[in-house]
Amino acid sequence: MRIVILGIGNVATVLGRMIREAEHEIVQVWGRSETGARNLADGLSAGYTTNLQSIDKGADLYLVAVSDSAIPAVADVLRLDRKLVVHTAGSVSKTVLKPCSSNYGVLYPLQSLRKEIPVLPVIPFLVDGNTGDDTALLMDFAKTLSADVQVAGDEDRLKLHVAAVIVSNFTNHLYVLAEDYCKEAGVNFKLLLPLINAIAGRLDQFSPSRLQTGPAIRNDGQTIESHLALLSDHPGLKEMYRLFTKSIQERHP
Amino acid sequence: MRIVILGIGNVATVLGRMIREAEHEIVQVWGRSETGARNLADGLSAGYTTNLQSIDKGADLYLVAVSDSAIPAVADVLRLDRKLVVHTAGSVSKTVLKPCSSNYGVLYPLQSLRKEIPVLPVIPFLVDGNTGDDTALLMDFAKTLSADVQVAGDEDRLKLHVAAVIVSNFTNHLYVLAEDYCKEAGVNFKLLLPLINAIAGRLDQFSPSRLQTGPAIRNDGQTIESHLALLSDHPGLKEMYRLFTKSIQERHP
Repeated sequence: MRIVILGIGNVATVLGRMIREAEHEIVQVWGRSETGARNLADGLSAGYTTNLQSIDKGADLYLVAVSDSAIPAVADVLRLDRKLVVHTAGSVSKTVLKPCSSNYGVLYPLQSLRKEIPVLPVIPFLVDGNTGDDTALLMDFAKTLSADVQVAGDEDRLKLHVAAVIVSNFTNHLYVLAEDYCKEAGVNFKLLLPLINAIAGRLDQFSPSRLQTGPAIRNDGQTIESHLALLSDHPGLKEMYRLFTKSIQERHP
Repeated sequence: MRIVILGIGNVATVLGRMIREAEHEIVQVWGRSETGARNLADGLSAGYTTNLQSIDKGADLYLVAVSDSAIPAVADVLRLDRKLVVHTAGSVSKTVLKPCSSNYGVLYPLQSLRKEIPVLPVIPFLVDGNTGDDTALLMDFAKTLSADVQVAGDEDRLKLHVAAVIVSNFTNHLYVLAEDYCKEAGVNFKLLLPLINAIAGRLDQFSPSRLQTGPAIRNDGQTIESHLALLSDHPGLKEMYRLFTKSIQERHP
């Protein structure tokens, strides 16, 4: 397919690489920053523009991969008649693109995409179109990028996005807090990496509710107290420790 | 080496398998439950006893792999003269074993061990002995089990245990909460597994503080509000969402 990518951030860059890898043609990249647009376009062997009025009208698919809050501004200007235009956001309704075209939808990558990581990740895609034909076309297109493609409407996509925020952004924040703590305490955070990977890696075999371990679920008050005492100079982390201990004990009475 | 294992739980079982794999001899297993002790002993080609007074006195190393709170009761009874006795707990001082022998220490596996997972995990070991010779012996022994062995005293081990609780028990609890939510919301938790593994897997290349993404760090109030609205029937998860959003924004001002 012939594709125009609007956006130059992490999602635009990583999806752009995957789309090239799958041997589609990227005809144009649009970005507000000329340097950013040119750099991404060069990497994808595409043309570029910084002007939404100059978007190539001859492509098959328009991928609006800008930040959630920037989508409405793009949708205000972009006029594509009957061309298929999709955004990539988990928590934004597909109808935001209604002004752009009679054919619109969503191609949502359920993954954390970072352009500085060169290896292309495994991405489950959730697709949705405003007509059955558009959904089918998006399904076929997404299958050229990934083995795991599902149809999901606005509501299910939003629910999965909330769950994704919990298991990725919040989890990563726990890693940040632990790394900060290790630095201050003078111990080596890297020693925790095998543990971190084990906890994540075994979920394909077992439900996490069967795998809960630690002082909270054991009701091991002595260990909990010694941990809280150690965290007395880290009030934020201490509050987090208390909340998790309470939440784990409530979940596993 | 000739080893006696005291305990029949996850740590005793998984370390027992690794010790056998490394071609040491397990001479005896002790457990309070006869069935439990016999089952584990059979799997490790060892003898067993349920009586602490009947512990074989001819081994080189005694591994007290019982729950933290059960260590003192074992230490009260176990008398081994000059034999090396160690426990496996992150948050318990090695001196709890002082009554047992003039030679005592710790062999702490910095990993979440579950006997139902047959694949032996990568385990960084933290070792500590009350004499230099004991520490050196534990170091040599642990190196037969793992490529990653470090000396760490009570204080550093406790600090790493706190950090381990944060990145494993708390992280797993986030997975539990997300799975509970997905079930209630009628969406498929398994779709999140590639994301979960990506977040954990990239920490060997990047500090987590460089990898934080999501609505909180973007200050994306609209998405945060739509997520909180969706969680209105899940008060515990909503409180968690608010706390993480605040904590992420404080950490990345």
